[in-house]
Amino acid sequence: MNGLMMQQPLLISSLLVHAERHHGDQEVVSRRVEGDVHRTTYRELAARSRRMANALVALGVSAGDRVATLAWNGYRHMELYYAVSGSGSVLHTLNPRLHADQVVWIADHAEDQILFFDLTFLPLIEAIAGRVKTIKAFVAMTDRANMPAAGKVPNLLCYEELIAAASPDFTWPVFDEQTASSLCYTSGTTGHPKGALYSHRSTMLHTYAAALPDSLNCSSRDVILPVVPMFHVNAWGLPYAACMVGAKLVFPGPFLDGKSLHELFEAEGVTLSAGVPTVWQGLLAHVEANNLEFSTMRRTIIGGAACPPAMMRAFQQRYDVQVLHAWGMTEMSPLGTACTLKSKHQGLGAEERMAVQAKQGRAVFGVDMKIVGEDGRELPHDGKASGELLVRGPWIISSYFKGEGGDPLVDGWFPTGDVSTIDADGYMQITDRSKDVIKSGGEWIGSIDLENIAMAHPAVAMAACIGAKHPKWDERPLLVVVKKPGADVTRDALLAFYEGKIAKWWTPDDVVFVDGIPLGATGKMQKNKLREQLADYRLPSA
Amino acid sequence: MNGLMMQQPLLISSLLVHAERHHGDQEVVSRRVEGDVHRTTYRELAARSRRMANALVALGVSAGDRVATLAWNGYRHMELYYAVSGSGSVLHTLNPRLHADQVVWIADHAEDQILFFDLTFLPLIEAIAGRVKTIKAFVAMTDRANMPAAGKVPNLLCYEELIAAASPDFTWPVFDEQTASSLCYTSGTTGHPKGALYSHRSTMLHTYAAALPDSLNCSSRDVILPVVPMFHVNAWGLPYAACMVGAKLVFPGPFLDGKSLHELFEAEGVTLSAGVPTVWQGLLAHVEANNLEFSTMRRTIIGGAACPPAMMRAFQQRYDVQVLHAWGMTEMSPLGTACTLKSKHQGLGAEERMAVQAKQGRAVFGVDMKIVGEDGRELPHDGKASGELLVRGPWIISSYFKGEGGDPLVDGWFPTGDVSTIDADGYMQITDRSKDVIKSGGEWIGSIDLENIAMAHPAVAMAACIGAKHPKWDERPLLVVVKKPGADVTRDALLAFYEGKIAKWWTPDDVVFVDGIPLGATGKMQKNKLREQLADYRLPSA
Repeated sequence: MNGLMMQQPLLISSLLVHAERHHGDQEVVSRRVEGDVHRTTYRELAARSRRMANALVALGVSAGDRVATLAWNGYRHMELYYAVSGSGSVLHTLNPRLHADQVVWIADHAEDQILFFDLTFLPLIEAIAGRVKTIKAFVAMTDRANMPAAGKVPNLLCYEELIAAASPDFTWPVFDEQTASSLCYTSGTTGHPKGALYSHRSTMLHTYAAALPDSLNCSSRDVILPVVPMFHVNAWGLPYAACMVGAKLVFPGPFLDGKSLHELFEAEGVTLSAGVPTVWQGLLAHVEANNLEFSTMRRTIIGGAACPPAMMRAFQQRYDVQVLHAWGMTEMSPLGTACTLKSKHQGLGAEERMAVQAKQGRAVFGVDMKIVGEDGRELPHDGKASGELLVRGPWIISSYFKGEGGDPLVDGWFPTGDVSTIDADGYMQITDRSKDVIKSGGEWIGSIDLENIAMAHPAVAMAACIGAKHPKWDERPLLVVVKKPGADVTRDALLAFYEGKIAKWWTPDDVVFVDGIPLGATGKMQKNKLREQLADYRLPSA
Repeated sequence: MNGLMMQQPLLISSLLVHAERHHGDQEVVSRRVEGDVHRTTYRELAARSRRMANALVALGVSAGDRVATLAWNGYRHMELYYAVSGSGSVLHTLNPRLHADQVVWIADHAEDQILFFDLTFLPLIEAIAGRVKTIKAFVAMTDRANMPAAGKVPNLLCYEELIAAASPDFTWPVFDEQTASSLCYTSGTTGHPKGALYSHRSTMLHTYAAALPDSLNCSSRDVILPVVPMFHVNAWGLPYAACMVGAKLVFPGPFLDGKSLHELFEAEGVTLSAGVPTVWQGLLAHVEANNLEFSTMRRTIIGGAACPPAMMRAFQQRYDVQVLHAWGMTEMSPLGTACTLKSKHQGLGAEERMAVQAKQGRAVFGVDMKIVGEDGRELPHDGKASGELLVRGPWIISSYFKGEGGDPLVDGWFPTGDVSTIDADGYMQITDRSKDVIKSGGEWIGSIDLENIAMAHPAVAMAACIGAKHPKWDERPLLVVVKKPGADVTRDALLAFYEGKIAKWWTPDDVVFVDGIPLGATGKMQKNKLREQLADYRLPSA
């Protein structure tokens, strides 16, 4: 027997309709590629999104067609989020940090029909324009005055001209909530990129869950600045959550240096931001060097990589900005966990709280997690047992776009490739990537712990720990370090730095100093490349 | 083209599984009918719910069968919420404040198979036991020691014996999220009661929306005490939201007087409560008379009827307890609006904020609202135009149980029977029930405003305003007043009290003093009965 409730599909367009009707005068502020600061409201943004939806129809875009973007965080990108998905097409956010060859491969694989781009990426567009197979038109996200010279890019259109020529009268179509809404490729370190194809249903459920008090805690009183790019898993869902709650949105465009961000935080009264640790490093350095404060920012969501303890301490204890660790993956829309405290933690001192906050956090409601041993059996949630982390839930992929790579699931669970613990309170902590874990004498050594300790040394700018071959133990930890400019430290001093901080047998066997560690397109260390480079490294202990 | 995300139905059982896995040691505290305070945890509650699910199978309950309760707020009632719905049956929460004849009619109409009851309601059970047609067993929600004497009630079973005899091994079944989960009858003032049949999908979406920061704002750091009964639209969804976020739950059982509630608030560190104004009146009177404070309670959700301004002032300005107005209906699961402030209100003074907070609030995301004039055309959201309020959304009924009364919708919208305004910020304010509105010379006069003014007079305990027949104006407002014990006030003094507070032509034409105003089963004034009683009242102005 079914319930007798209204049948309404969960559709992304409803977010924008809600923002327009209930928060019409709420601001959306963008620092533009053109250099200025642009201000609009949800009311105007909704009208322009409807115009763009009409423009897409005029361009021949049909339901299910992929429409690509190569763009920073800004109001035009946001208009495309709603215009494309809302009208039943699929928004494909390309990562402009990829090499032109990769962009061509991905655009061809996705069969993108139209590509919208910010002026910054004109050189990339020129490099790919003659090579991509399915793209019928390139749209420069600017006005006529700022349009690039014609010629190099065929079928080059002007965003503002499309908007101006189209009617704002557009009724968002109603369709099945399982319909694909957006597409994001993982920057896999091996093999070809693979696409995660989100649906309206998955996006909407993710948005509800992300905005909850124990998740990202978004309200109409927040001023949200997503530093995390809109081409990186939909800026962790914030452009959707902001509409759901009617928060003011502030977009930084391409200006992600500490000075630009801090100015925008202060000028616009930002209360909540989100990004990866590397961005915050630049911000904190600027704030520290210039003796500044955060007068309105009170929370920052840190994901993509673990927040170094020194960074957490600086934010919380020096600047009164609470750090919220969050964890997820492209395959998870992306949110899996958020590290909000429970009532039992409220009496803890600052350092004890930080020990909890250092974990990746508790499952956002809707996501189920388990850890399994090498035999596939579930391990206890005791904060000690460490195993491969598997997840499931309505915003986690069941397969990659076009069925690439076959069925990625194991008994209905998605293997994350992370190794973690889960404690009795449900807090998950990643100890390693499963491919990065160091297998020493049949035991696992987590490389992340070892890296965090090294990162806490004042002379260390970046540290990676990999398993180096060892005749007796199979593998032993090898620390690879980039020193800070002007700073110095010896191998022995670094190894001595581990004393008392970790089990003795976890201490790295050796240190290699390098000028740089290879980073991927999303800023993560590519330890597989390090392993290749150091494949023949002979440990002194070997 | 569909997205490629995991297909997982939204099921109520997932809430309990989540609470058990992530908040296993979180407390659920209940004041019991037996008189003591009982403490359990989500871990134990989940295990007992699984036992009860097995017991239901043993009792022959099948998917879709209705299982009824006549019970206060308590852990056993909560176990039934999950055991019944989670196993695919339908939880039917009967209202024990109804007359035995009505209970029999509703239980027969619902075709209830089993009835669980708290000992308080034994007399009611004895009154209906021989009359209900489909109920095969009555289960007293107590242990063997407290079981009533056998004989009067056939097929009388003991709750704790059922639990003890059943295995805790039960795998919650997976089924279509459209499956019916629970049934609640409206206490209509005319005609037979009608059933709202909720689904797992509607309940889960409602739970996500209810827990949002701008809705009821529930987190794992909250200690939630629902005074609103679990037999009244699922205690506004709090037993579900608490599991979703892992909040501590405190159940007051039958002890709803000010003293009992305040003691429980203080003993258990309650942070958030929810109920109707009449309950808070008793609580505030007790706190005031005994010079007490609220040491942990910071928010109270008030619904069912508008919160009188004096009550809001007392809570907020005297006791530092923020009042959150919420509005909904049985047909809406129930949440429609919540009156949280926007950032633009943060600079307002206490009284100006209260003017916003006096409204019923903004639509919870998922609910769409509009107001229409007598011609059915939509009216502007300007805070002035007043029309019938219509709503739609995935947790609003499409029809009543068994199709009773035909199609209740108008072009896909549910007419609430309320008359309201909506302002440009989306805040809805109810000005009247459409059947209570006073039609004077072709204009509408809202009875609620007139009642609120009268209620603010120190001598007035309760006030109702109805339309009395008038030869020239069709209707004119007639104020019906219950004086406070020992207080006195004249007709002319009361009418003079309106001066300057309202348009002159809205002022009531006369005052009738009465000993009491008839209340319905949910504590609302039955103005239709007043209108019957005063049908022949001749206004002095007539």
